[in-house]
Amino acid sequence: MTALPMFEDVGSAAARIKPYTHETRVVGSRLLNKYLGIEVLIKCENQQRAGSFKTRGAFNAILARMERGEISKERGFVTYSSGNHGQAMALAAYQLGLTGVVLMPTDAPQVKVDMTRSYGAEIIMYDPEDDDRIAMAQQVAAERNLSMISSFDDPDLIAGQGTAIQELLREVKHVDAIVLPVGGGGLISGSALVTKVFSPNAKIFGVEPENANDAQQSLAKGEVVSISSPQTIADGARVRHISDLTLELMQKNVDEIITVPDSEIFTSMRLVADRLKLVAEPTGVLGLAGIKSLVDSGKIARGSRVGTIISGGNVDLDTFATCITSPDDALKEMQHWQS
Amino acid sequence: MTALPMFEDVGSAAARIKPYTHETRVVGSRLLNKYLGIEVLIKCENQQRAGSFKTRGAFNAILARMERGEISKERGFVTYSSGNHGQAMALAAYQLGLTGVVLMPTDAPQVKVDMTRSYGAEIIMYDPEDDDRIAMAQQVAAERNLSMISSFDDPDLIAGQGTAIQELLREVKHVDAIVLPVGGGGLISGSALVTKVFSPNAKIFGVEPENANDAQQSLAKGEVVSISSPQTIADGARVRHISDLTLELMQKNVDEIITVPDSEIFTSMRLVADRLKLVAEPTGVLGLAGIKSLVDSGKIARGSRVGTIISGGNVDLDTFATCITSPDDALKEMQHWQS
Repeated sequence: MTALPMFEDVGSAAARIKPYTHETRVVGSRLLNKYLGIEVLIKCENQQRAGSFKTRGAFNAILARMERGEISKERGFVTYSSGNHGQAMALAAYQLGLTGVVLMPTDAPQVKVDMTRSYGAEIIMYDPEDDDRIAMAQQVAAERNLSMISSFDDPDLIAGQGTAIQELLREVKHVDAIVLPVGGGGLISGSALVTKVFSPNAKIFGVEPENANDAQQSLAKGEVVSISSPQTIADGARVRHISDLTLELMQKNVDEIITVPDSEIFTSMRLVADRLKLVAEPTGVLGLAGIKSLVDSGKIARGSRVGTIISGGNVDLDTFATCITSPDDALKEMQHWQS
Repeated sequence: MTALPMFEDVGSAAARIKPYTHETRVVGSRLLNKYLGIEVLIKCENQQRAGSFKTRGAFNAILARMERGEISKERGFVTYSSGNHGQAMALAAYQLGLTGVVLMPTDAPQVKVDMTRSYGAEIIMYDPEDDDRIAMAQQVAAERNLSMISSFDDPDLIAGQGTAIQELLREVKHVDAIVLPVGGGGLISGSALVTKVFSPNAKIFGVEPENANDAQQSLAKGEVVSISSPQTIADGARVRHISDLTLELMQKNVDEIITVPDSEIFTSMRLVADRLKLVAEPTGVLGLAGIKSLVDSGKIARGSRVGTIISGGNVDLDTFATCITSPDDALKEMQHWQS
């Protein structure tokens, strides 16, 4: 598969990954609905295996390559990731008995590095300021005869990520809109493929942190725009740039990318902990955080039925504790470690 | 129903409360199993409506009284609770359109007081050191012609609480042991009724905080023993004494009550947040906290299949943050507010 992924590819992905992934729950809350002014349907991918939706794409990308003979017990893979994709790929390598090498940035949350290592993957750290991770991965792939897999710029990954919203739509039938976190754009690209078929009139919104709005800028400009050092607590959205593939898919299917300040991320993490009793990572609540402003601005009508995904739950507990109790401290801390 | 509740009463309760309660998930974790040396099956009652298993007993006690004509739109109820039972009763009053009055101690977590009020119940605060809450409730019941309902000393409540473990056993079939938090003894008493039928060889263990071991002392002495001021972070286990009813049921069905230090509660809250991505209240993880010591002491054999319940998730987020990050701070804070 080298062309754009299509609706049918999500179906194939769902069949392929079924034995290896959880069908996560869809939850809601009376108070959240009241607060947001809509009916919100929340898919809990923070409780997916390895703690994020990335497990779906990882298994699909690897299993599809195994079917095509590009990956085998003899020939493993190398990938790069700020965390969740790396963990997911490491889990898949562990479970499928493959060699997996993961390039991770030095500012990745410790919990994500630890988890990736705990599955037995080999980790190579890189400096997110100075190193070109894609070039590094290509070099490792060539030197060690490994298959290289991106963290989002891959049709099989994108088709796999689409299976989460497919499960949600099968369960809740109709939605008026879906609102999703945007990092590299894999989740929203895959989700849009399914939504356009299952709920064709639904609006599709993406949400980025204010200071990491490379997808928003890219859609505005019509070409991939890079941000050198995205400043946000949402480490999964600290992607410098999306790809031509995810840009094309977003241009085709996404209605709009909006942004939220990090303070809204803290509020949503607090709401999710308080009302749903769930631990979500900062990037994980971007969708929820965006819904409030979409309703306030009238882009989503009050009373609508809106689907979203808590994309992940992998957060250092110290960071989590700070986020849900002292947003100002978290902001300060963030400025500190990014200076 | 005035005699001891029986297995059949749990079945009736399940049918009665079904429209008003969630069938919560049963979860597990590879790492938790490794850490504990057993296969653990965890029922997530922290994600029950109103945030705890108490919703089961509350609806059953009220609906059974409505069937018997003891509660009606004209004649509401009064109850007393450190929190979760109060919230659950308030939710039931709200949903069934009844008048509900809840006596709450002045040291109840703010989140529990707020939630109880948010459902529209009337709250009367009492001093847990000086006031006799049962006498107060009886007085309110007499003065205002309300039906009085205990927080655990009631056959209908106990039968309702048993429905959680009934769901767990229906789902997982066989267990070698169940390990449950003990406050007033309602959860374990109701659970034991079901376990003795569904998994008759299973051992039944209760867990109390070291400094709130009134049930353990009561079983040892063969009569209800009171503790004047139980010192523990687990507010749901700060019950001064169990009742004759729960004592009799525990004597009959419970193999042993063990205790854990509060430090083990913090460890378990951290594990639950880190691995299951769940917010649990301190009392909620008592079962999990006890499993470790039961396995270490050989009372539960390694490799066993063990069921437990995270009994609730209603915890102030500041307290939760302290518990999962700085156990020593939490201990100090606890000593401070209890001095």
